[in-house]
Amino acid sequence: MKKKHRLRFERYAPEDFIKKYQELVRDTVIPYQYDVLWDRAGNTEKSHVVQNFINAGKALRGEDTGDGFYGMVFQDSDAAKWIEAAAYSLAVYRDEELERRVDELVDIIEQAQDKDGYLNTYFTVKDREKRFTNLLEGHELYCSGHMIEAACAYYEATGKRKLLDVMIRNMEHIYDYFVTGKHGGYPGHPEIELALLKMYRCTGNEKARELAAHFIDVRGVDRDFYAREKEARDWTVWGNNPVDLEYMQSDKPVRELENAAGHAVRAVYLYTAMADMASLTDDAQLKAAADRLWESITKRRMYITGGIGSSVHGEAFTVDYDLPNDTAYCETCASLGLMFYAAAMNELECDSKFADAAERAFYNTALAGMQLDGKRFFYVNPLESLPGISGKAPTHRHTVPQRPSWYACACCPPNLARTIMSFGQYAFSENTDTAFIEIYAAGKVRFENGCELDISTGYPYDMDININAVKGGRLALRIPSWSRSFTVTVNGREESVTPENGYVYITINDGDRIGLSLDGLPRWNYPSVRVPSIAGMAALTKGPLVYCFEGADNEGDVVGLAVDTAAAAKIGEETDLGTDTLIADAYRTADNEELYSFDEPAVSAVKAKAIPYYAWCNRGENQMRVWMTRYPHPQK
Amino acid sequence: MKKKHRLRFERYAPEDFIKKYQELVRDTVIPYQYDVLWDRAGNTEKSHVVQNFINAGKALRGEDTGDGFYGMVFQDSDAAKWIEAAAYSLAVYRDEELERRVDELVDIIEQAQDKDGYLNTYFTVKDREKRFTNLLEGHELYCSGHMIEAACAYYEATGKRKLLDVMIRNMEHIYDYFVTGKHGGYPGHPEIELALLKMYRCTGNEKARELAAHFIDVRGVDRDFYAREKEARDWTVWGNNPVDLEYMQSDKPVRELENAAGHAVRAVYLYTAMADMASLTDDAQLKAAADRLWESITKRRMYITGGIGSSVHGEAFTVDYDLPNDTAYCETCASLGLMFYAAAMNELECDSKFADAAERAFYNTALAGMQLDGKRFFYVNPLESLPGISGKAPTHRHTVPQRPSWYACACCPPNLARTIMSFGQYAFSENTDTAFIEIYAAGKVRFENGCELDISTGYPYDMDININAVKGGRLALRIPSWSRSFTVTVNGREESVTPENGYVYITINDGDRIGLSLDGLPRWNYPSVRVPSIAGMAALTKGPLVYCFEGADNEGDVVGLAVDTAAAAKIGEETDLGTDTLIADAYRTADNEELYSFDEPAVSAVKAKAIPYYAWCNRGENQMRVWMTRYPHPQK
Repeated sequence: MKKKHRLRFERYAPEDFIKKYQELVRDTVIPYQYDVLWDRAGNTEKSHVVQNFINAGKALRGEDTGDGFYGMVFQDSDAAKWIEAAAYSLAVYRDEELERRVDELVDIIEQAQDKDGYLNTYFTVKDREKRFTNLLEGHELYCSGHMIEAACAYYEATGKRKLLDVMIRNMEHIYDYFVTGKHGGYPGHPEIELALLKMYRCTGNEKARELAAHFIDVRGVDRDFYAREKEARDWTVWGNNPVDLEYMQSDKPVRELENAAGHAVRAVYLYTAMADMASLTDDAQLKAAADRLWESITKRRMYITGGIGSSVHGEAFTVDYDLPNDTAYCETCASLGLMFYAAAMNELECDSKFADAAERAFYNTALAGMQLDGKRFFYVNPLESLPGISGKAPTHRHTVPQRPSWYACACCPPNLARTIMSFGQYAFSENTDTAFIEIYAAGKVRFENGCELDISTGYPYDMDININAVKGGRLALRIPSWSRSFTVTVNGREESVTPENGYVYITINDGDRIGLSLDGLPRWNYPSVRVPSIAGMAALTKGPLVYCFEGADNEGDVVGLAVDTAAAAKIGEETDLGTDTLIADAYRTADNEELYSFDEPAVSAVKAKAIPYYAWCNRGENQMRVWMTRYPHPQK
Repeated sequence: MKKKHRLRFERYAPEDFIKKYQELVRDTVIPYQYDVLWDRAGNTEKSHVVQNFINAGKALRGEDTGDGFYGMVFQDSDAAKWIEAAAYSLAVYRDEELERRVDELVDIIEQAQDKDGYLNTYFTVKDREKRFTNLLEGHELYCSGHMIEAACAYYEATGKRKLLDVMIRNMEHIYDYFVTGKHGGYPGHPEIELALLKMYRCTGNEKARELAAHFIDVRGVDRDFYAREKEARDWTVWGNNPVDLEYMQSDKPVRELENAAGHAVRAVYLYTAMADMASLTDDAQLKAAADRLWESITKRRMYITGGIGSSVHGEAFTVDYDLPNDTAYCETCASLGLMFYAAAMNELECDSKFADAAERAFYNTALAGMQLDGKRFFYVNPLESLPGISGKAPTHRHTVPQRPSWYACACCPPNLARTIMSFGQYAFSENTDTAFIEIYAAGKVRFENGCELDISTGYPYDMDININAVKGGRLALRIPSWSRSFTVTVNGREESVTPENGYVYITINDGDRIGLSLDGLPRWNYPSVRVPSIAGMAALTKGPLVYCFEGADNEGDVVGLAVDTAAAAKIGEETDLGTDTLIADAYRTADNEELYSFDEPAVSAVKAKAIPYYAWCNRGENQMRVWMTRYPHPQK
């Protein structure tokens, strides 16, 4: 089969669910984050992002740098992710004022670039002698990566080259240092690899591709690099351990990796680049490694919500089947990274399992990262929240029970914004002869292969999808793994189709009306007994949505609820959060005064109400659980 | 009622269960720990304990200190706890060689004491100028406390005063510094307070009592003490945070404390001294605080095994109802400390709840701290062990799935040894007119009030206790809270008795034969729904023993087992570990290949086998669970 590639982001104009989210990002998140970059947002920590670029420009011109650098070593990346989100927004929603703001920021960034192409405000303002002396922690290559992504997106959205040219010069500077100059080392936080491949796709620049290949190829070969680097410098950012090789993803050449390990975001960014590179080069070893790591995550190290990274210690993967609910890390960025990885794998191999995981990550953990009003954000997305313990016990300090308004480390909110604004990249793909619908979403989509579709659906709530073929072609429809049955109709007549690797293929003519009905029933999910934290429990899903039980809907207590999985859950009324509800038969255990008792506590039959996980914690601090105890004695 | 006090330790000569443990300590643990102190034990980390004392003596004489100091800042306390265990052993089991070894060590310790009475090898060898400049971390007062306890025990066991005189001089030195000299501050690790009260009881020395009162009274009054102390010094041991006031138990005067907080061992050592002091002085505020803290622990912060300290972060208490099984800390020393606290509370107030908790701590967490052969020790005692995750995931590094042979920080093994050897202190108490049996144990006990008993019982396995009154008197028998029924007979005739605060009182004559039958049935225990980690689960107990399910008895998998609590568990065959077993109806969930599945996994009815928790992990690394999932569908 011909290789498929992601839909170009400007080719999808959403309606309904995704449109509402994009409008929220456009109208609330992008303006708010813009104010944060400029330190004009109230009630939040100073970000200093734009001022850092202004001060770097002054430093280069030999002027007084005023209040110098402020923030995290990777503070520049917030500007990059904001520009990228704005670019995606501009591709669908023209907005002169927003474009002016981006142009203004690009001018400031250009001024912060050194003559040799170097671009990083932390090192330019603070100490230019330290450039590239701390790849372990310095995040220069990470920041360049994000700015490269932003530059490509803005160029593709508007045709404007200024930032792209800045970043090509920056890429060439990095190329000269590492490839031509034969300096050792590789990025402490992978990101630039996938960005360079985006630049290659966007511009055809061979140096970008070569530099990506270089960083992928040298990683983990010189295992002692970070230790020697640390030995040679007299400064540190956080005192990271250079010999925790597995954590640093420097323990072996990437083609030999077996298990998803280390910092979860870094891991999936690296694996994304590996998959992208394997697509470009047909490198069988790289593809095999990317496949193994995919299995490692999705078969042994992923939460049902698509969350990854079980532990706050290093925001990292841990070991197989270690998936605690209440102390989970599940960083929003990690689930976004899982979507990037899925999209890359999806190009490498035609199997619906990749879109299954991307969909799981998006509709659950990624969207849960943002309050429904777009104003507060979760960095950490646990599957159980316990006010009194969550955010308080030392093991639970990271699982705060309410979304904060902004973070000192603000990676997640702009990352989510750019991903929502480019949702078409994950929902659709194509090759020269087939248009793929990976994730169902309402709106108009124009494939490069000529196919044009107008899709109506209440997805992710309603599992009936109606497609109007404005221009026909060969269409591939993903049958999600959660859908136990489906019917496909063309102009009202049912088609007899059998999925191949999770897709059904039909050839349609201009004007055809295609109907797809997926299984929209609430379903109980049962975990493997290999996962100790949830063995014997059950969780509810409907379509792509994972549901959770919140105290707000259940008399303040969900820990004392035990669900009866013998009965199917029913779809209940809509909430004022704009979601539906699922209603399950359950039993509530009375609150026993005694910590431990010989007397089996009294139970009473109740209806337990669940809402989609992405909408949790929009009604104040309260208990929340995804995985529920099952009721022991339904016969009573 | 007249106040009761602990039995003097030399007055109990055990038989059967406790005798076997004491013989194990006498024959294996004390000799092994002696070799460790002298660095003669193979296969373990160097301890250097005796050499530190030798080198400190050299330092005081101005000689070359050779290899100097080695080990933890509190390394001296290992010698103290070993001497204390040896003293208790000598009180029951005469042993000239052991006594010679103690005397030899006492001579070495005496040589390490400075002329002014100061005694601590860390500071004497390394830097005498730093004495008492780091109460936060320096552990000088902690080490003095343990050596005071050792000195009192050795004096009481043998009548030998040398170490006692050394420690009286040391106490006077500390008194001069803190009381006469008005230096501020209080012990970073409480321990000396309870030791000083032991010294007062043992010698009547008023300064010891005054100094204990001083440390109790000033604690938490000057809240900024540790911060100022840190400011004033240019060195640190571990970099402890001086302003984490609740953790340091320095947030408020002890009489105002509400919740058990901070480092669990330090907490219960402090509370023990508070209760002891309240007994001595009838200080109502101190008693009220000791009561509140007791309730805080036993009603909201204690595991069913008598383990305390939910988190590895600071080995500390956390928040109410935060009792995770797999990441529990439950340090062996903390449960021993809970026994000390219980014994002190038991003198303050006549209620069987104190012995209930002491018994729970002893027969479960404390004994689990030692391998059945006395050669390996747990510091951390989780209620769930998961090879593959335990000891490996970063959140589980501390819950190693096998007992190590010795620790760099070797506080627990000698602490357990001394407690086993002085078990009579916890099992019996008395006042001038009543002899109390707090915890049933076979053997001969001679109360100071004249009562002499010869007790036969298979406790903690057999709940029939037969008591031969060698000399009669008024006897109080504790009716444990776990015993739902009981009968008392005197010379075969059933007595009609009603417990008062958990004790039944009978007056017996010389030669009477008393029978007590307690409830020895296996029972399911149900937790409060306030404890999220175990809500909806069940645990098995029989008498004072908590049982656990190990993979070794259950086809290697206990996570996949769900017990049917509708059926009572039955007592099964004895194991070759010397324990009995409990057999529960259960269902085994098949190992589903899929991480998450819509298909309810197949289950099969099985008999699940449990052994006493204290005997877990004596057959290699394997899964273990105390709290079990309950089976959802018994009707099938």
